[in-house]
Amino acid sequence: MSAASDAAAAGRPLGEFEVIARYFTRPARSAGLGVGDDCALIAAPPGLTLAITTDMLLEGRHFPAGTDPHKLGHKALAVNLSDLAAMGADPRWFTLAIALPEVDPAWLDGFSRGLFALADAHRIELIGGDTTRGPLTLSITAIGTLPPGYALRRDGAAVGDDVWLSGATGEAALALAQLRGAVELDAAHAAACRARLESPAPRVALGRKLRGLASAAIDVSDGLAADLGHVLERSGVGAEVALEAVPVAPALATCHDTALARACLLAGGDDYELVFTAPPERRDDVLRAAEAAGIAASRIGRIVAGEGLTIRDAAGNAVPLAARGFDHFAS
Amino acid sequence: MSAASDAAAAGRPLGEFEVIARYFTRPARSAGLGVGDDCALIAAPPGLTLAITTDMLLEGRHFPAGTDPHKLGHKALAVNLSDLAAMGADPRWFTLAIALPEVDPAWLDGFSRGLFALADAHRIELIGGDTTRGPLTLSITAIGTLPPGYALRRDGAAVGDDVWLSGATGEAALALAQLRGAVELDAAHAAACRARLESPAPRVALGRKLRGLASAAIDVSDGLAADLGHVLERSGVGAEVALEAVPVAPALATCHDTALARACLLAGGDDYELVFTAPPERRDDVLRAAEAAGIAASRIGRIVAGEGLTIRDAAGNAVPLAARGFDHFAS
Repeated sequence: MSAASDAAAAGRPLGEFEVIARYFTRPARSAGLGVGDDCALIAAPPGLTLAITTDMLLEGRHFPAGTDPHKLGHKALAVNLSDLAAMGADPRWFTLAIALPEVDPAWLDGFSRGLFALADAHRIELIGGDTTRGPLTLSITAIGTLPPGYALRRDGAAVGDDVWLSGATGEAALALAQLRGAVELDAAHAAACRARLESPAPRVALGRKLRGLASAAIDVSDGLAADLGHVLERSGVGAEVALEAVPVAPALATCHDTALARACLLAGGDDYELVFTAPPERRDDVLRAAEAAGIAASRIGRIVAGEGLTIRDAAGNAVPLAARGFDHFAS
Repeated sequence: MSAASDAAAAGRPLGEFEVIARYFTRPARSAGLGVGDDCALIAAPPGLTLAITTDMLLEGRHFPAGTDPHKLGHKALAVNLSDLAAMGADPRWFTLAIALPEVDPAWLDGFSRGLFALADAHRIELIGGDTTRGPLTLSITAIGTLPPGYALRRDGAAVGDDVWLSGATGEAALALAQLRGAVELDAAHAAACRARLESPAPRVALGRKLRGLASAAIDVSDGLAADLGHVLERSGVGAEVALEAVPVAPALATCHDTALARACLLAGGDDYELVFTAPPERRDDVLRAAEAAGIAASRIGRIVAGEGLTIRDAAGNAVPLAARGFDHFAS
């Protein structure tokens, strides 16, 4: 820390080890050994299953250049927490690999504050990582724990199960549409959408409460239709979703471009809600779990025999899905 | 797999999920659930410590554009295995986050073969990851296990301990010097150096055998002097190293530019040898451990009171260290 302070005071650039010491090193809590050795060390939690997930975010692809570093620190961790939530896991530890085009103390300060604020809120501990120079790139691996057999996998949906959605989808995609000038929003709706895009709230508490209750779950990162489609494919079932039952956030409800709003709702991506299935006899339990987690849960459809997703409007007609979910090599 | 084959047969580009299915999905072995859900699931190994490490490699910084993909697949995992080796851990699982500028089936085939060949040799299992489009970037998080209290940390070196080095340093850096035209090497030496640079052999077997024997260890990625320096700083001690005792590989011994050869030897980096400390009464045990692991171990110095590293030539004069170790923000 003193070397870093010296460097900052002297106006010279910080080195790699100073960056790590100054912005990314905190005393190990539950880890036996944290940042600063060849590996981090943690005691394997006896009798628990480890859930492990990795996400990589690149500037210009997953977030625009110039994104507020505090929000970026939040989001880089949030997308991984969302994967843990979709598994029903309790967040425990994470590593961060980061490539930076330059050492900018103000940027690093904002980024690390955003990162640690969300980490502290979910009690997940940074235990190690890697720092290098290059195009701004963030790769986080997060580790959670849960009791054996209680993971919310993608392959457990059964015919007759209800299909549920937490919160509402589409606002993040609508924010992107506004950023590229495809739609105009009033200030309040624009702000709500930007917040959803830049500071997603991972549904960790809900995921935890769905253990032993949901038969399958996934987080909505590529769009509701595409991610529910992954569950259907893995589970070997189909689903019927009622468009009228899919909750519509105010910004989408008032959007003049109804085709765009519908595309955002069903295929937008970057929502980080949970779509999950549960037996019909557990409806009250699901509603109680969602209430306890502080998030709405909407019953949007049911699992059927066969394959694929059919979304029907109020008249019973199938809604065509113009856009598939987000595929990083298709766009 | 069928979708991927269809795409390849039809000449259309593979999508993200096809890339994962075709090149990076194998049946889960020890993992309860591998590639293809929100998280991978593994049973926490009872009574063991988990060692976790992350490295990120960028094209143009950590490897040149056009690097043979098979060798790159090897190296991306090797640098992480080297961190596990430096901790004395048994390799178990890893995740891979990869950004690709394009989907090139021949490249992916070579890369995945190189990756899995080394993974199989060390019985480490790919359990998950992320795939996206962007400048070629590889971020691997590797997890190993070891008995509690047996980790080879950086902070355990004690005054009076011997300083040991596995194998020999400097050839990878000499290969880089040759690639940028700074030195000429004969064909055999050039090939030996390129092999060290492109296909490093992580000292996993040695690390495992040093458990309960070495007092501290680190892998040499930033250069012998710099990495030994990290051990000294962490342990709060100094070291005296005898230049004559540091093994010199044939390519360095015959290099006409003796200043360059010495810089490579002491500050080259990318060697992935282990530098470690052990009490003098364990010398025979160290030599037996190295022999059993199939790698030479050289006693190059000793730990002393004070701080910092002093390297002395045969006349007892301190050798000036022109280059510090590699710092990703200093160069």
